[in-house]
Amino acid sequence: MVYAVGLMSGTSLDGIDAALVEINGKDEATTVELLAFSTLPFDRAVLQRIREALAIETSDVEKICSLNVELGERFAQAALLVCEKAGISNEELAFIGSHGQTLFHIPFAREAFVASTLQIGDPAVICERTKTTVVSNFRERDMAVGGQGAPIVPYSEYVLYQKPGVTRLLQNIGGIGNVTVLPQSGKQTDMIAFDTGPGNVIMNELCVHFFNQEYDNDGLYAKQGTVNQALLDELMAHPYIKKAYPKTTGREDFGKQFTMVLIEKWPLNPADLIATATMFTAKSIAEAVRLFINGETELIIGGGGSYNPTLVMMIKEELPEVSVLIQEEIGFSSEAKEAVAMAVLANQTLQHRIGNVPNATGAKRAVPLGSITYY
Amino acid sequence: MVYAVGLMSGTSLDGIDAALVEINGKDEATTVELLAFSTLPFDRAVLQRIREALAIETSDVEKICSLNVELGERFAQAALLVCEKAGISNEELAFIGSHGQTLFHIPFAREAFVASTLQIGDPAVICERTKTTVVSNFRERDMAVGGQGAPIVPYSEYVLYQKPGVTRLLQNIGGIGNVTVLPQSGKQTDMIAFDTGPGNVIMNELCVHFFNQEYDNDGLYAKQGTVNQALLDELMAHPYIKKAYPKTTGREDFGKQFTMVLIEKWPLNPADLIATATMFTAKSIAEAVRLFINGETELIIGGGGSYNPTLVMMIKEELPEVSVLIQEEIGFSSEAKEAVAMAVLANQTLQHRIGNVPNATGAKRAVPLGSITYY
Repeated sequence: MVYAVGLMSGTSLDGIDAALVEINGKDEATTVELLAFSTLPFDRAVLQRIREALAIETSDVEKICSLNVELGERFAQAALLVCEKAGISNEELAFIGSHGQTLFHIPFAREAFVASTLQIGDPAVICERTKTTVVSNFRERDMAVGGQGAPIVPYSEYVLYQKPGVTRLLQNIGGIGNVTVLPQSGKQTDMIAFDTGPGNVIMNELCVHFFNQEYDNDGLYAKQGTVNQALLDELMAHPYIKKAYPKTTGREDFGKQFTMVLIEKWPLNPADLIATATMFTAKSIAEAVRLFINGETELIIGGGGSYNPTLVMMIKEELPEVSVLIQEEIGFSSEAKEAVAMAVLANQTLQHRIGNVPNATGAKRAVPLGSITYY
Repeated sequence: MVYAVGLMSGTSLDGIDAALVEINGKDEATTVELLAFSTLPFDRAVLQRIREALAIETSDVEKICSLNVELGERFAQAALLVCEKAGISNEELAFIGSHGQTLFHIPFAREAFVASTLQIGDPAVICERTKTTVVSNFRERDMAVGGQGAPIVPYSEYVLYQKPGVTRLLQNIGGIGNVTVLPQSGKQTDMIAFDTGPGNVIMNELCVHFFNQEYDNDGLYAKQGTVNQALLDELMAHPYIKKAYPKTTGREDFGKQFTMVLIEKWPLNPADLIATATMFTAKSIAEAVRLFINGETELIIGGGGSYNPTLVMMIKEELPEVSVLIQEEIGFSSEAKEAVAMAVLANQTLQHRIGNVPNATGAKRAVPLGSITYY
């Protein structure tokens, strides 16, 4: 038995999620129990620096160099915070798995750019402040064997959620939406996973723009608004939605720039825009899910979007033949899921075991992920 | 006995140096023999992308994300090339130590920026292409314990050059100049090291600007020119030169921007500018060396600058009481020195042993350096 912390900061920039877990067993027999979870929000100054560093127009090498270390300090704080919450000393930790903050992701080579991904949050700083071995930079190795570096959670989902005889679809709704299909067969090699399209990113950008709020709290704006069918049709015609999996997307495709163009082209009232963006997320998820309905089928929703009842209701209405649940309803913490996955992946890495799912990422083979900074 | 490769790409952007070494023994009893050395030059397109990525004005997050992976491929090629040259299969390598390409270095916190350093050249790509475990990102950990992350070679220099009873000063002249003092005592804890100031960087920028040449070949331009005393006095008054060690500098202080201001302010003929810049490097080195003259004292010059006879002659004239040698004269390869150091440091990391020298970097304590990407 070991204690470990998983750290995750997603594209929705809500803060750093930290999950303290107890891990028993090895590889496919691994069991993971969540002991504590906390989120360290970014203060406004740091949030502003992250936003600048991840946009092509405002980023530069000096900002990225400094922010890498600054975020390392924050990730370390987040790890110490969750230990404190659980009453466990950081000296008792066996390791930390840290995803880092994604600044950019290029899934396929284009023009002068090669396929690549960039996460920051210096592991050496996390290691020193927590006095703990750190595993980091999980996505790069998958891309080095031809994968898209995303989604990164499927191996962990297999360990945690596999239920033979039932088709289980795990839909995460962070900034971007991604789904993992755990087939009836129960075989890891039959797993499929891909990004469904936008998660909360467009809704959030609209809330920031119109209301100076980070997100649509409880889906209230979307509830007040009316879906604009013409705009929805245009959104659903986005080439990403019809594209065959494996596929991956990011803020590059559906972020601020995308939202600004949309606002300019569609001068609707803000609530209607948010309602339509919410329906776009719901429909793009339903479109993906329909491909895999087979016998008893459960859709388990997690991530920030699972706390948006308007969004969840829209998904349920789109998929009457599927049991739609949120993670808490099956006894898992939705908000902790990706952070827990980082601890599971780090555990694999330290045992020199594989962590990617080639059917999910498109990689040529399964490989251990990440780099180890030993304390 | 193990075979290992060290990879280095310095601030002078000459290409990727690869040293294949045989390592025997452990820690202070480690012996290292150089079996082969090669340099893989950057082609013009890559060189252009590096130049863009390391300048604040032209860099952005997309360029850095892509270049990290692109350089990973080049570093892997450099490692395979040196193995081929020695007739050793990459499958026989125990590990690779890769410094990466420094894009930016902030030795001290200033304004909104924290002390930090940024090297790129994706270790996951190097690992996959060479089928070898890679140790990378050596500087970050030293900075995490309060060091300046530079100089990084002193531990290796101690292993390779220590000669009890003689004060040995090892002066590397890359883009930036740095010196390591190996004291008469032979004790690692008495070592001192710091950056002396510019190495070849100003001369090189002048050669690019005026002659579209990467450097002053054989120091011929400097030889033709005349040192301008007024400009030299101004240069020697630069606050970095008089500053007490430990201290570190980089292209941020003496790079293109610095050179462009100089050209504008001092409309001399190009050869005179180059001669003066060469003398500035020589005098700043001599100023540092004089602090440590004690009994039998040797100054051993390495790096690209050791192949510039005009520069070496100037240094000898400044230091009549010191034996000035270039590395080859004592049986070491000057050009391979920093690449060899990366193999020595990686060897330490894999044994969970220290790699920094606190007297050199200003770190609070000695720590293992780098992150390990296991194949």
